[in-house]
Amino acid sequence: MAHIQLREDLPGIRGLMVFRPETAEPLNQLADILLRGPNTLSPGERELIAAFVSSRNDCFFCQNVHGAVAAHHLGDNEQLVLAVKRDPESAAISDKMKALLAIAGKVQRSGKEVTGEDIARARECGASDTEIHDTVLIAAAFCMFNRYVDGLGTWAPADPEVYRQRAPITAREGYANSIRRILEQQP
Amino acid sequence: MAHIQLREDLPGIRGLMVFRPETAEPLNQLADILLRGPNTLSPGERELIAAFVSSRNDCFFCQNVHGAVAAHHLGDNEQLVLAVKRDPESAAISDKMKALLAIAGKVQRSGKEVTGEDIARARECGASDTEIHDTVLIAAAFCMFNRYVDGLGTWAPADPEVYRQRAPITAREGYANSIRRILEQQP
Repeated sequence: MAHIQLREDLPGIRGLMVFRPETAEPLNQLADILLRGPNTLSPGERELIAAFVSSRNDCFFCQNVHGAVAAHHLGDNEQLVLAVKRDPESAAISDKMKALLAIAGKVQRSGKEVTGEDIARARECGASDTEIHDTVLIAAAFCMFNRYVDGLGTWAPADPEVYRQRAPITAREGYANSIRRILEQQP
Repeated sequence: MAHIQLREDLPGIRGLMVFRPETAEPLNQLADILLRGPNTLSPGERELIAAFVSSRNDCFFCQNVHGAVAAHHLGDNEQLVLAVKRDPESAAISDKMKALLAIAGKVQRSGKEVTGEDIARARECGASDTEIHDTVLIAAAFCMFNRYVDGLGTWAPADPEVYRQRAPITAREGYANSIRRILEQQP
């Protein structure tokens, strides 16, 4: 049971967002812009950063939600998501993504760990300033989302099939719309 | 120098927000709702949570910005902000704030560290579900803001007087308005 009184049918961040719609709105806008807005990084690549950071923070709900959405965008490639969570450097991703995930991994521990060398490596692999910026902000944002979800003791479905089935819906309608629809249907 | 090309006259998160106005908007909305929106916790109490978490994350810019705004709201009491950063349990704050800051301190490390006992202590001191929710989300949000500011290597004024002078302006106009004004004035 969660630490505060939430709708019991809504897992993870969904229950929290319906509990506090005022903060849900900017949180979802941020997620939609970072993960689904116009960008030279594909939605699959950005969801991969989100899943990777959530995995490093050991957040079961977020790593499964965003891992499933990443896999969906990447041609239902769940093995690739698992490989990235395990070790980005040996996964079958671009050198640019390896360099960006190395930055994300440092941000997960502390922003102060990112060095000029990490940035230079990403640039040499072709990363733009906006791609570096968005990587840092996605990693930082998931350090927030993960702490929000776990700090309030929310529950998460254990069955991977739940995340797998939901992923195409999330990919299609986005984060803000999903919560708005629940709020509209509330008694 | 920051890791990416930013306007050199704008320190900390301000340069980042002008670099990427699309993400600045929801980030500022979140800060305004959490720190300045209608709430049973005062703006001073909420800025204190922000300053405390930023201090634990060793983010010089954020702990000075929000420390100065907290001090301003609390009757220019800079000593109280310093005492809270040092040790909330021995600071001259309410038992409820001590219990909420204990939760915030755990969220700063990991959401998973928050226990039922931490929540029970806050409830016994009179904290409501929304106050507990907002404390966790403020702490989580500053784990994002701190990583964003430091992960991109932004600069921060060293002189405390800069933060002291800016605090009443921030307290009056809020976070979103401050960035919108800069964006409107840009060539």
